Amino acid sequence: MTRIAILGATGYTALELIKILLRHGEAEIVAVTSRQEGQPPIAMIHPSLNGRLDLRLEDLSPSEVAARAQCVFSCLPHGASASVVPHLLESGARVVDFSADYRLNDPEVYSQWYGLKHADPGRLGKVVYGLPELFRKEITGSQLVANPGCYPTSAILALAPLLKNGLIDPLSIIVDSKSGVSGAGRTPKLTTHYPECNESISAYNVGRHRHTPEIEQILSIAAGTTVEVIFTPQMVPLDRGILTTTYSQPIKVLSEDYVMQVVRDFYEAEPFVRVVDHLPGTKDSLGTNFCDITVRVVRGRVLTISCLDNLIKGASGAAVQNFNLMFGYAETTAL
Amino acid sequence: MTRIAILGATGYTALELIKILLRHGEAEIVAVTSRQEGQPPIAMIHPSLNGRLDLRLEDLSPSEVAARAQCVFSCLPHGASASVVPHLLESGARVVDFSADYRLNDPEVYSQWYGLKHADPGRLGKVVYGLPELFRKEITGSQLVANPGCYPTSAILALAPLLKNGLIDPLSIIVDSKSGVSGAGRTPKLTTHYPECNESISAYNVGRHRHTPEIEQILSIAAGTTVEVIFTPQMVPLDRGILTTTYSQPIKVLSEDYVMQVVRDFYEAEPFVRVVDHLPGTKDSLGTNFCDITVRVVRGRVLTISCLDNLIKGASGAAVQNFNLMFGYAETTAL
Amino acid sequence: MTRIAILGATGYTALELIKILLRHGEAEIVAVTSRQEGQPPIAMIHPSLNGRLDLRLEDLSPSEVAARAQCVFSCLPHGASASVVPHLLESGARVVDFSADYRLNDPEVYSQWYGLKHADPGRLGKVVYGLPELFRKEITGSQLVANPGCYPTSAILALAPLLKNGLIDPLSIIVDSKSGVSGAGRTPKLTTHYPECNESISAYNVGRHRHTPEIEQILSIAAGTTVEVIFTPQMVPLDRGILTTTYSQPIKVLSEDYVMQVVRDFYEAEPFVRVVDHLPGTKDSLGTNFCDITVRVVRGRVLTISCLDNLIKGASGAAVQNFNLMFGYAETTAL
Amino acid sequence: MTRIAILGATGYTALELIKILLRHGEAEIVAVTSRQEGQPPIAMIHPSLNGRLDLRLEDLSPSEVAARAQCVFSCLPHGASASVVPHLLESGARVVDFSADYRLNDPEVYSQWYGLKHADPGRLGKVVYGLPELFRKEITGSQLVANPGCYPTSAILALAPLLKNGLIDPLSIIVDSKSGVSGAGRTPKLTTHYPECNESISAYNVGRHRHTPEIEQILSIAAGTTVEVIFTPQMVPLDRGILTTTYSQPIKVLSEDYVMQVVRDFYEAEPFVRVVDHLPGTKDSLGTNFCDITVRVVRGRVLTISCLDNLIKGASGAAVQNFNLMFGYAETTAL
Repeated sequence: MTRIAILGATGYTALELIKILLRHGEAEIVAVTSRQEGQPPIAMIHPSLNGRLDLRLEDLSPSEVAARAQCVFSCLPHGASASVVPHLLESGARVVDFSADYRLNDPEVYSQWYGLKHADPGRLGKVVYGLPELFRKEITGSQLVANPGCYPTSAILALAPLLKNGLIDPLSIIVDSKSGVSGAGRTPKLTTHYPECNESISAYNVGRHRHTPEIEQILSIAAGTTVEVIFTPQMVPLDRGILTTTYSQPIKVLSEDYVMQVVRDFYEAEPFVRVVDHLPGTKDSLGTNFCDITVRVVRGRVLTISCLDNLIKGASGAAVQNFNLMFGYAETTAL
Repeated sequence: MTRIAILGATGYTALELIKILLRHGEAEIVAVTSRQEGQPPIAMIHPSLNGRLDLRLEDLSPSEVAARAQCVFSCLPHGASASVVPHLLESGARVVDFSADYRLNDPEVYSQWYGLKHADPGRLGKVVYGLPELFRKEITGSQLVANPGCYPTSAILALAPLLKNGLIDPLSIIVDSKSGVSGAGRTPKLTTHYPECNESISAYNVGRHRHTPEIEQILSIAAGTTVEVIFTPQMVPLDRGILTTTYSQPIKVLSEDYVMQVVRDFYEAEPFVRVVDHLPGTKDSLGTNFCDITVRVVRGRVLTISCLDNLIKGASGAAVQNFNLMFGYAETTAL
Repeated sequence: MTRIAILGATGYTALELIKILLRHGEAEIVAVTSRQEGQPPIAMIHPSLNGRLDLRLEDLSPSEVAARAQCVFSCLPHGASASVVPHLLESGARVVDFSADYRLNDPEVYSQWYGLKHADPGRLGKVVYGLPELFRKEITGSQLVANPGCYPTSAILALAPLLKNGLIDPLSIIVDSKSGVSGAGRTPKLTTHYPECNESISAYNVGRHRHTPEIEQILSIAAGTTVEVIFTPQMVPLDRGILTTTYSQPIKVLSEDYVMQVVRDFYEAEPFVRVVDHLPGTKDSLGTNFCDITVRVVRGRVLTISCLDNLIKGASGAAVQNFNLMFGYAETTAL
Repeated sequence: MTRIAILGATGYTALELIKILLRHGEAEIVAVTSRQEGQPPIAMIHPSLNGRLDLRLEDLSPSEVAARAQCVFSCLPHGASASVVPHLLESGARVVDFSADYRLNDPEVYSQWYGLKHADPGRLGKVVYGLPELFRKEITGSQLVANPGCYPTSAILALAPLLKNGLIDPLSIIVDSKSGVSGAGRTPKLTTHYPECNESISAYNVGRHRHTPEIEQILSIAAGTTVEVIFTPQMVPLDRGILTTTYSQPIKVLSEDYVMQVVRDFYEAEPFVRVVDHLPGTKDSLGTNFCDITVRVVRGRVLTISCLDNLIKGASGAAVQNFNLMFGYAETTAL
């Protein structure tokens, strides 16, 4: 049994995390934190937790958190996470960080994309990226894991097999992603106000979304060479789900069957990647930790289509998968 | 040709109003106001107006507004409207007020339900309620019209024929309404944040929604006796549309055919009420100024079902219908 | 460990049932049936089951089913179920029937509402209605359970405490229900074609929905006297969720606090009914076996608002709850 | 005043067409046809037309249609249209054809993509493609116009300025489109059944959608050289709207400002193309005949984003625009 604390528990990823952990026989949630005044019960913030989790939100210091919990899931925003995580680690807690703070290896790149000086730059480059399909060995037993972004997970899982096997030109990649609205978080904004985004499709942050360097960094590691992507995020009116379509130039003529087989072999032993022949829809993986992937070759270009639930495989499911690896539980527990 | 100003032009009712008026051959929009800083073009606030209306938002005084416009549509919130309308009227403008400020006859009732002391109490009781189906004569040529609420329009149009004809017990009425999210306005709130209200149905303000006294006042006038209703508003995940189901006790045994005929006769000459045999859906009247009504008698109780677009017949379409009557244009112009 | 067969496995209730049973440590799905030609893998029909359930659809006779399975969940349509269930029972299988075939006690009432002569009339009146909150003792160890309808569950759970305690007039009840589209099943029809029902609210089968006699029968048992309801079902654009609002006349003046306490006491020990102070939304119980209930007293009338997921507490979750009771597993297992 | 007939009037494009024509002072709808039995009133099929169009569906021969109408809008499916249009033309009617039958110039290409032998191959290559922004002169006064497909309109309007000006490599183009569900028509299918496609994103017909040769043919004309595209259509859960993102390789280094200016200049005089600086959403053009376009240059690649309402600018609005040009009315009438 592992004692768990969740920092920043008022958002959607924290809610999904709680729901998954409530099914986990070896996890006990002992603290949920927030700066919210008055320490309301968590079920007042998330009514779906009524009768399921009887805790109040608390405003705890890192040392108080570490005194209670063995594993801390930080759902704090970027910037905030990096100022808390070092204290948690020093106090002996293990940490799964949902923010982007420990995903990038280079503090300069971080500053450039996030507009912040990193609070803990010395640790960058030493933290494992929590995508078990690529970094399982390093995650196992690790003290700190940088939980991947939702878009990056969908793009990296689709493209890594192609790049690892040297099948595509690493500078030719286009990543066209479509996401549900929960990816924008729980803070009300005009762009996510129901009558604004319902019945509409729109692109945003074209060419400058913060997930771009994350995708490039991890794919560059997979490829063993510099990878560049053009990344276009688009918001569509549904709660949850990402469908990512990628386009890339093969280094030589490739048949669809061959590329499909490469991807299939790559994920043969993976419990949460389903390589499918049909064109998947995001609803197939809704509420699950699966990522569904297929491949097409069109006019000589290689296309991948990958689907996942941005709050599960794109966030909280991946976090529990990492937690299981960190603490030696069966990787699929509760997922 | 009538010169038009629109106060509080950043919301949804103003946007719909503008779209309708752009089709109106006799209306020229000359000013759109807002306290928004920097006087941005209205098309920056409402991108759908790009290339259609080339005006900037201005922060104008009532006298500046009245100097430019002959008719003012006030889309200001309640409270704000009553502090501006008197000045507009004194300056000679005619006004269609979208707020609730001039709908109720009794300042006490207003204070009780809106939690405000009314800024212009002397005028209450003398302003016509802008529902042409009941008050066409008074609206025609009027200087100030109180534009009805969206829920009240759906309930009143369904019940007025029954009460005017003395068919139902005026103290037995239940009004169960379901509305799309645009009815909540354009200010982002947690309850209207997409991932909160999408894929959910919820009731709100049960027994204490501010449209209750408005429904009761107008239906009491129609009935010639005190009418009380239990009003339950519910939010469902769509942009626009209200479906209102009412239940009432007939004063004697009534056949469905008979009640249907009464309603049909009542609205025979009305251009915007469609009495239909089938069960209407809100999509039938989406984007139109129609209100669709049908009647059922179940286990001796009289049911009505009425549908309308809350932004058109429930707001801006009604406002233009009133404008047409006030200024002597054909009532259906632009609708 | 119990061996399970699912009849009529191509629909939504079967899919949800499978997902729940896959989490159930004591249930093993051994057969899924359908008349579908070619015996496709179930995952071809329900792509979300890829990698989760490796069975093919089979067209099996009742005796073949009973030879393999100890418990049969029949998701067949009404009419079809009653022609199969007797054979299953004779072959020694226990059955949870999702159809309406064994819910009503009177074959005449069945014929009148379902337009069919009942194929197994002798059993009617002897089959327990699978609502554990009212009939737990009879369900426990039972061989055949009639799984309740989705609307009836939402209405009965809200009203039973009031009627059992004699608080409301049993002839005064109005049940106004709003449901997501999955309640209409998986067969494509114009009314459930996306561009028809999306962005629309509509009532259907007003005064003649087949769940009416079911609600009345069970509430009459609860009340110990004849209960009549006016039942209005309405379809709203979401996948899953029912919100039911009821209105009834109290037999004497009742305070909201008192009625709330009665309901709270009634469900004190229930694992899946949450009596809440706030107004629940259907999203609070989405994907769970909970039914959320609250009470309001408005102008002397008693209102209840109840929410549930029509595919879980309104169908497959209830079925597994019944299964657990029938086979002696902890009632909340897998739920 | 022009007398109008609409063939195949039960679908969504016909409904939108009717709504637009009802606002058109110079158009009188005199016949609406369908093979539907019993000649029901059109308002029984489209309840939104209640009180707006009092015609019955009729099953008329081409000569009967031509005897009544001067202009025929054929909303028949491909294949059916080509077997009717020749007779209409011979009888002297002018035709706007919504189907794909007269869009492609080569009967072989038609057969290959539509799986049919063309019924009127001799006319192919002589029919104008009804995109006024490219072919206004040919449309004006024409007897037959092939109304463009919805996806092609969004792609062609975005890319034509770049290809006409020789800015991009004509073999490098990727077209990634997202569409609402109404694009799939009004016949119920499992893929457009609400609970299947709601809350889901999915790609379909990847690399083999029939709009591919149409896009390529028209863009090749614009470019004056062979254009090839990779076209990926994706369905997202909304009623109406297409957002198309294209990616192409510039023939030399181009600044975003420069490309934007080229597009802006290209459409300077166009009433229905809005070249915008911001990233448009499909809701901005919902219910209008506008196509909104913007351009980005990312990592040296040229991106375009274009939005339109698939039922208006992508179908019925374009058809009325063509009608206006064919009959000499102001091009923007009723739009």
